[in-house]
Amino acid sequence: MITSISPAGSLELLSQLEVERLKKTASSDLYQLYRNCTLAVLNSGSHTDDSEALLKEYQSFDVDVVQRERGVKLVLSHAPTHAFVDGVIIKGIQEHLFSVLRDIIYVNLQIESNPQINLSNAVHITNTVFRILRNAGAMKMGVDPNLIVCWGGHSINPVEYQYTREVGNELGLRELNVCTGCGPGAMEGPMKGAAIGHAKQRYTQPRYIGLTEPSIIAAEPPNPIVNELIIMPDIEKRLEAFVRLGHGIIIFPGGPGTAEELLYILGIMLHPDNRDQPMPIVLTGPKESEAYFRSIDLFIRETLGEEAASLYEIVIDDPAKAAQIMKNAMPRVKEHRRSKEDSYSYNWSLTIEPEFQMPFEPTHDSMANLDLHLEQKPEILAANMRRAFSGVVAGNVKAEGIREIKKHGPFILDGDKSLMTKMDRLLGDFVEQQRMKLPGSTYTPCYKVKT
Amino acid sequence: MITSISPAGSLELLSQLEVERLKKTASSDLYQLYRNCTLAVLNSGSHTDDSEALLKEYQSFDVDVVQRERGVKLVLSHAPTHAFVDGVIIKGIQEHLFSVLRDIIYVNLQIESNPQINLSNAVHITNTVFRILRNAGAMKMGVDPNLIVCWGGHSINPVEYQYTREVGNELGLRELNVCTGCGPGAMEGPMKGAAIGHAKQRYTQPRYIGLTEPSIIAAEPPNPIVNELIIMPDIEKRLEAFVRLGHGIIIFPGGPGTAEELLYILGIMLHPDNRDQPMPIVLTGPKESEAYFRSIDLFIRETLGEEAASLYEIVIDDPAKAAQIMKNAMPRVKEHRRSKEDSYSYNWSLTIEPEFQMPFEPTHDSMANLDLHLEQKPEILAANMRRAFSGVVAGNVKAEGIREIKKHGPFILDGDKSLMTKMDRLLGDFVEQQRMKLPGSTYTPCYKVKT
Amino acid sequence: MITSISPAGSLELLSQLEVERLKKTASSDLYQLYRNCTLAVLNSGSHTDDSEALLKEYQSFDVDVVQRERGVKLVLSHAPTHAFVDGVIIKGIQEHLFSVLRDIIYVNLQIESNPQINLSNAVHITNTVFRILRNAGAMKMGVDPNLIVCWGGHSINPVEYQYTREVGNELGLRELNVCTGCGPGAMEGPMKGAAIGHAKQRYTQPRYIGLTEPSIIAAEPPNPIVNELIIMPDIEKRLEAFVRLGHGIIIFPGGPGTAEELLYILGIMLHPDNRDQPMPIVLTGPKESEAYFRSIDLFIRETLGEEAASLYEIVIDDPAKAAQIMKNAMPRVKEHRRSKEDSYSYNWSLTIEPEFQMPFEPTHDSMANLDLHLEQKPEILAANMRRAFSGVVAGNVKAEGIREIKKHGPFILDGDKSLMTKMDRLLGDFVEQQRMKLPGSTYTPCYKVKT
Amino acid sequence: MITSISPAGSLELLSQLEVERLKKTASSDLYQLYRNCTLAVLNSGSHTDDSEALLKEYQSFDVDVVQRERGVKLVLSHAPTHAFVDGVIIKGIQEHLFSVLRDIIYVNLQIESNPQINLSNAVHITNTVFRILRNAGAMKMGVDPNLIVCWGGHSINPVEYQYTREVGNELGLRELNVCTGCGPGAMEGPMKGAAIGHAKQRYTQPRYIGLTEPSIIAAEPPNPIVNELIIMPDIEKRLEAFVRLGHGIIIFPGGPGTAEELLYILGIMLHPDNRDQPMPIVLTGPKESEAYFRSIDLFIRETLGEEAASLYEIVIDDPAKAAQIMKNAMPRVKEHRRSKEDSYSYNWSLTIEPEFQMPFEPTHDSMANLDLHLEQKPEILAANMRRAFSGVVAGNVKAEGIREIKKHGPFILDGDKSLMTKMDRLLGDFVEQQRMKLPGSTYTPCYKVKT
Repeated sequence: MITSISPAGSLELLSQLEVERLKKTASSDLYQLYRNCTLAVLNSGSHTDDSEALLKEYQSFDVDVVQRERGVKLVLSHAPTHAFVDGVIIKGIQEHLFSVLRDIIYVNLQIESNPQINLSNAVHITNTVFRILRNAGAMKMGVDPNLIVCWGGHSINPVEYQYTREVGNELGLRELNVCTGCGPGAMEGPMKGAAIGHAKQRYTQPRYIGLTEPSIIAAEPPNPIVNELIIMPDIEKRLEAFVRLGHGIIIFPGGPGTAEELLYILGIMLHPDNRDQPMPIVLTGPKESEAYFRSIDLFIRETLGEEAASLYEIVIDDPAKAAQIMKNAMPRVKEHRRSKEDSYSYNWSLTIEPEFQMPFEPTHDSMANLDLHLEQKPEILAANMRRAFSGVVAGNVKAEGIREIKKHGPFILDGDKSLMTKMDRLLGDFVEQQRMKLPGSTYTPCYKVKT
Repeated sequence: MITSISPAGSLELLSQLEVERLKKTASSDLYQLYRNCTLAVLNSGSHTDDSEALLKEYQSFDVDVVQRERGVKLVLSHAPTHAFVDGVIIKGIQEHLFSVLRDIIYVNLQIESNPQINLSNAVHITNTVFRILRNAGAMKMGVDPNLIVCWGGHSINPVEYQYTREVGNELGLRELNVCTGCGPGAMEGPMKGAAIGHAKQRYTQPRYIGLTEPSIIAAEPPNPIVNELIIMPDIEKRLEAFVRLGHGIIIFPGGPGTAEELLYILGIMLHPDNRDQPMPIVLTGPKESEAYFRSIDLFIRETLGEEAASLYEIVIDDPAKAAQIMKNAMPRVKEHRRSKEDSYSYNWSLTIEPEFQMPFEPTHDSMANLDLHLEQKPEILAANMRRAFSGVVAGNVKAEGIREIKKHGPFILDGDKSLMTKMDRLLGDFVEQQRMKLPGSTYTPCYKVKT
Repeated sequence: MITSISPAGSLELLSQLEVERLKKTASSDLYQLYRNCTLAVLNSGSHTDDSEALLKEYQSFDVDVVQRERGVKLVLSHAPTHAFVDGVIIKGIQEHLFSVLRDIIYVNLQIESNPQINLSNAVHITNTVFRILRNAGAMKMGVDPNLIVCWGGHSINPVEYQYTREVGNELGLRELNVCTGCGPGAMEGPMKGAAIGHAKQRYTQPRYIGLTEPSIIAAEPPNPIVNELIIMPDIEKRLEAFVRLGHGIIIFPGGPGTAEELLYILGIMLHPDNRDQPMPIVLTGPKESEAYFRSIDLFIRETLGEEAASLYEIVIDDPAKAAQIMKNAMPRVKEHRRSKEDSYSYNWSLTIEPEFQMPFEPTHDSMANLDLHLEQKPEILAANMRRAFSGVVAGNVKAEGIREIKKHGPFILDGDKSLMTKMDRLLGDFVEQQRMKLPGSTYTPCYKVKT
Repeated sequence: MITSISPAGSLELLSQLEVERLKKTASSDLYQLYRNCTLAVLNSGSHTDDSEALLKEYQSFDVDVVQRERGVKLVLSHAPTHAFVDGVIIKGIQEHLFSVLRDIIYVNLQIESNPQINLSNAVHITNTVFRILRNAGAMKMGVDPNLIVCWGGHSINPVEYQYTREVGNELGLRELNVCTGCGPGAMEGPMKGAAIGHAKQRYTQPRYIGLTEPSIIAAEPPNPIVNELIIMPDIEKRLEAFVRLGHGIIIFPGGPGTAEELLYILGIMLHPDNRDQPMPIVLTGPKESEAYFRSIDLFIRETLGEEAASLYEIVIDDPAKAAQIMKNAMPRVKEHRRSKEDSYSYNWSLTIEPEFQMPFEPTHDSMANLDLHLEQKPEILAANMRRAFSGVVAGNVKAEGIREIKKHGPFILDGDKSLMTKMDRLLGDFVEQQRMKLPGSTYTPCYKVKT
């Protein structure tokens, strides 16, 4: 089963040197990374969130980048069949294949091997995130703020899923665009809803941006509605891309990944430099999910304090209101950017501390050593808790994480008793509500909280 | 509450003489027709299928066509609020308003008052249908056959509705376009599904054609996804438009209107002249609706015979297959048109007998006098049964029909005993399955079959 | 030599009845008219302005309209080769072929045979002009006034021609569009210049409108730059189309046709109802043509008076200034239309008296009987002189006129001595300056002024 | 006089680090280079080819790159007024300003400071040329070969200029695109002509590519028709870009720059590896320029031999034929690329020897030491003579060269007697025919041939 795929979307031609870099033989690590991301994209629509399982299932899958007279082609062997309709690749997935190629090449050739870029320097990181996004065409000049980031779980129930579609529809009716982390559930629903809302408004420049990274893409493959897929090099740059690109944030029910995202944005917004940044944040869900939000809210109040809780608004069972809050905030965002002479498409003036920028690699060691206690500045506590939840995500769905857990048992989370109890309770809720993994499997926790 | 609406879509400027024709004072009948269609379009998304009720609710609604420097404007008074998002009209509905204006003016000024056109002549009727469609921009040159007509009930259950979306998605993934009769249920689902499928394929010229007529539009208002709305002058020209525009037909579960449509197409395809016409017809629904299709199928076999039943295929619970049958038939349709030098966008060579073209006005008299017995050519029997079901639709949801029934009681259907029994059983099934009217009301039959 | 041409541009499909009307056999007169216009369009770029000669040269030319599966096709026999590049028809000319088809059908089927339209009624004429233009797609909604009518001779010298290009370039640089009467010389130069100016400005919606009519098109075929070709039914409707469509007028050197146009617009602008109409009129040419404009100016002052002369501005050797005057007037035009709630794309509020609307057919009789004396209201005198020059144009280049002159000798122009002397002098200047016919032939006057 | 210019064209946003690099204070050399190119672009349409004079005239000119909320802006002080129409910058020039910015930043940040790129390695040079072109958006995927490079003098006479327009028109009518070196004369005419030809064909993707480099741009500023301006880092990479991008070459009359270009392409095509490369080369001009081509032809035959002369065709006074030769060759070019699996938009498989790739800096020393004798392989002789003519161009019009000549007197060209005599004669012809500099100045030779 060999298929040859022509380019679609934003990638243009490759130089001969670039093609060589991606050859199977040349640079094995880079090829593996590239191959796995490609496989993940082709797996769109499958029903697993287990990266490890996916890689195993398609061990014979292979991708070869070749130069042809009309441009680059991809030659796929043993590709998943989900990506094809009557034997022809779905155009959206075809574009995603070339987005992967574009970003892998750019990050590898222009960023990582460039001695002028110092990736332990905050300014350089922020410029790097900018350049990756620009190279992906994500910067649209002359467009007013209109991009809403939607976060939420990949494993949500049907009522919640329908609710995310309705919110998407209301966003689309207001000509707002949507950016999510790719994947099913709360990352797919708002896009499908917005596509309908946009169609009703004959909106001609709809954007469904999917921001992902190599270690998560296999567990949460982009759905084909995504019309701008961007693969950031790691989770921290992906999070920075979300908050500098987006003009407002909607958070649906979710598990540890969603908690990670919430802690990330709260930690940043709590920074004194960011006090005057207008950034609407709404937590929303159907009537049935109200309890979920109340427990998250309680956890935030008890750990980060009332000020953190004042940064967001909880909207229950009112899709139109959630969308209106976003729509109404856009003029304020615009005015603020204008007053600071900051770009509409990239929020340069948002301060992000190194704690949130530096890659955190979750290992048994690094997890065990997290500084988890309540006697620190809320933004630093947020950063540390963010890392804890990030580790849980890795242990749940990322190939590397799953392997580690298999080998060494669950991550141990340790720290201040009272904080540990709260975290344990929250994680326990996620387990109970089946937010850790897609339903159908029994969940074995990848963590153990020392309480 | 006065709103002024600018043009959108295909209507350009009006001449001063045309504007005068639509003034409230000038030509009262035409104004009423125009006003009611406009009201119906604005009522999109409301949950009633009772034209009479709608007209009553918005008695104070008014529309005034005025000339402005940038073109025509519509001044609306006391319009339904469904059509607006945060006070701004939904673009799709805005386009529909001007489609109504375009078609009412064209039919009135170019067709009905044109002494060169003889509307009791078959050739003239077919040319008239063509010209209305052309004026609406529905003829696309240089495009291969790809338009699938979807018929089905406005009142279907959630499982059936979800199924129509899935079929739409599969059609969209195959880059097929969709034409329905406007309204909710099976007329909305395939369009929403196709919009998602088209988005996945980055399909840039999606068509969601809604074909309606003044007496039905209020009961089945177009949903805003419809991006080509066309108001034909009467039900027969609307049906002719369906079968000459479309390249394939999918029939979902429905009530008497769907039965009318099925009888219409079968009656035409049974005509000896049309034997070699490739026209894929699929009856499809979820597992749960299998019994429904079996009883329809039985009714067709018992009344029109096996040949009629051989014209369609029943597909249960397989959205991809339904779409594949359509997709696979398109090359045959194309080849047939090419061999006959017939247009891809209008099937001139299909023979339609006057029985199917001449407007049938359902009154107590005309209904009672229908020639309903089994001893006639199947295509003629189909034409007569088509009229019977058409009358039931009128009595159920059209303003005129509802008024008649209120005044004189149910229509009486009389004829050959054995045929009457079968029709009564089928209609009884529709009642039982709540296909007569939107759920929520008790249905009082508008007909009485003499068995 | 048979070529089959597919549709391009704005015409869509034809109905079967419409195709029949254009068959050679069916309606001979209409076919002749259609065939001759088609031939004229194909003759673009040839170097003759003698309609009669053209028709003779291509007696065997034939055009057949046929229905094909992808729409109408034109089958041409013995077509001029000018229209082809390496055997393929130039796209611009291909579009023109279908513009001819579109307008001939529309005028014949929708206007002339429509009993609701009374072509001797001023309001109906104005509405008819509007509808022909609208059917041709010439009405652009939501566009600010920007259309400059350029008039001038088809036979001008190289210095003048280069000057018209430069003015065109300056108009194009100011994002103004151009409308001319089609043909070579001053009707081609401004369009070519504007195409370059528009390219420099990356102007994406350039309009090069050519307004012509069946009796002149053969002598002045549209050049392929024209991207909107419209065939009005007669010279008077063509003139009305110019002044209602255009937002400003530039007049280059020319012969009797240009004089006709100048008298037409002055006659209209002198009407008391039109006093407040902003309509910039500039007469412009290179240094070398100054004398020409001085003599025209003198003629106007001596016949129509100083007020008439105050309506235009003479600009010598300053292309940028001519364009600036137009550009600067556009906001005034816009404001006036807005204040009158008149359309930006059709000047409904301009009063045009029946003297300027009713078709004038130049025959020896009608020419001899023109009421030419100075003791009448200037606007009426302008109307009568307009007819006189119109007759001279017909005698010079139109097939019908040439035939008449061949048969009966020159037209006799008679009237008030002092007026006759002035007209004779002006016409004599045109002869001397070779403005009557394309250079290369000796000009034999088709008129005789009784002085 | 301060003007603020918004982005247009292909540049998107800049990162903060990139903006800093172009600050006047930061990196003085880079700023000077950037400022001078910007000034050159603004000087479009001026009538000087003296870079030195231009820089002197606008000593107070300044450009500042600033970040604004809608993207980068350029703040210009004391800019030339040629670039503005009624105070507004011409859109084409506005785009050019941002092309300069784009290329200067890319070459400086991505190429020159990148340790992975070795600019003395042939493969790296070719990849670098590719990447600069790709970054400029010059690679169009999926487009068949259609790009014609036009070379010729900036100082040509009116008859020759008109001829270049006619050739351009014929190219445009055949839907071929045009690439030149920017500047007036033979670099402008074909573009203007093609713009008209493209308009006649309604060609929607016209390309008018201008390839220049920092030292020549001031003497030959791009005309605003150029819709893709690319600034290559030096003359050799510019020449490589021409021959790898283009699919055919037309050479009009010109001076030493044109001779340089002709020697460059002949030297390459003489390489044994390139024998099977289809590359149509036409030398063409009006009747009046026939002698010119005969003397060039003789020079080639006498120096490089008959084989070199067999590589081109001379076409006199036949614009259509010149264009046909190009059009007819395109299928061959396509077929060759396909057979080699080479890109349609970049001719990777053309062998270019280091002699043609390594930058040659013309100084009195390097010029005096050129290896000019007939006893070497023709492709090497071509390379050396190419350098000699390149030096003459520098001495004529480039700021650096003019300064050198002012300081040290003319360059001395020395070598084999018989070759020197031929070169002296050819250069003498250029002087006599006023091809060295724009007319109006007396030309003082910047070279002295030792014969």
